[in-house]
Amino acid sequence: VTQESTASAEVELPASPFLKALLAIVRAEDTHGVWERHSDAELLKEFIVTKAQRKALPIIGDPEPELIDRIEQYYRAVGLRIEERTGCMSSPIMKMSHEGFGRVLLTTGKLVVFARSLRDVHRFGFDDFATLASEGEKVVAQAIAAIEQFPDAAKAD
Amino acid sequence: VTQESTASAEVELPASPFLKALLAIVRAEDTHGVWERHSDAELLKEFIVTKAQRKALPIIGDPEPELIDRIEQYYRAVGLRIEERTGCMSSPIMKMSHEGFGRVLLTTGKLVVFARSLRDVHRFGFDDFATLASEGEKVVAQAIAAIEQFPDAAKAD
Repeated sequence: VTQESTASAEVELPASPFLKALLAIVRAEDTHGVWERHSDAELLKEFIVTKAQRKALPIIGDPEPELIDRIEQYYRAVGLRIEERTGCMSSPIMKMSHEGFGRVLLTTGKLVVFARSLRDVHRFGFDDFATLASEGEKVVAQAIAAIEQFPDAAKAD
Repeated sequence: VTQESTASAEVELPASPFLKALLAIVRAEDTHGVWERHSDAELLKEFIVTKAQRKALPIIGDPEPELIDRIEQYYRAVGLRIEERTGCMSSPIMKMSHEGFGRVLLTTGKLVVFARSLRDVHRFGFDDFATLASEGEKVVAQAIAAIEQFPDAAKAD
């Protein structure tokens, strides 16, 4: 599968609990059923940005609100996966400061299970669906490791 | 001291480590020395909103950026006090969602030391300087209690 074809809406999504979680998040926002007939691959296609596309993107100015929403959906999907795997609710808080720089935290109870500085947010995206799935699940694994390290803080209100 | 006089720039600030921290935060942003001749009370006067003023404030639409900045300064001062009292760095992350609703977290290491939902942000302010000082230090005390409860998570990177 080449990068070009994975970015199109024709392909099948790889079986992945992360992609399933992300689809649940995206479809939950479709309160008017506008995307009901869209395939799963179509719904997630904006998350795919090939290396060539990424290079061509300008990184000046504030990123589009749609892009910020997409990044939040990504981290909410991580939160959903954490909950599926541990039973602990987890939610992101994301703050953009300027020109595509920002910070995201995922918390569970009183524990920060994941923290990342965001930069070049304009270029947020993944080479293909398999990479989106594996990168997302990698964040999930990191967060779960933190919960296992500090279970009491993770369970605290 | 009446509410009216505390809101004016003429009064002396009560001796308070929290107000001192808040002034340090506010003065640090004055990179061009514009406020150098301003008294401490003048610099903090926007934090004072009397009950009558608060009632008169409209709570429709998105709050002014200056107001959001002020709330962040308040929580950064809390962070500074936490550091002074525990040696642990602490910083806020604040996210406004819509129309004056939002959320703020203060974290130390991997610990969420304080979390609060924000609402009616338009009306953010304190009756007088003494209340500003005591409310700020109350948040500091809560955060320190969390650090004492989960010291390992607070020390984790």
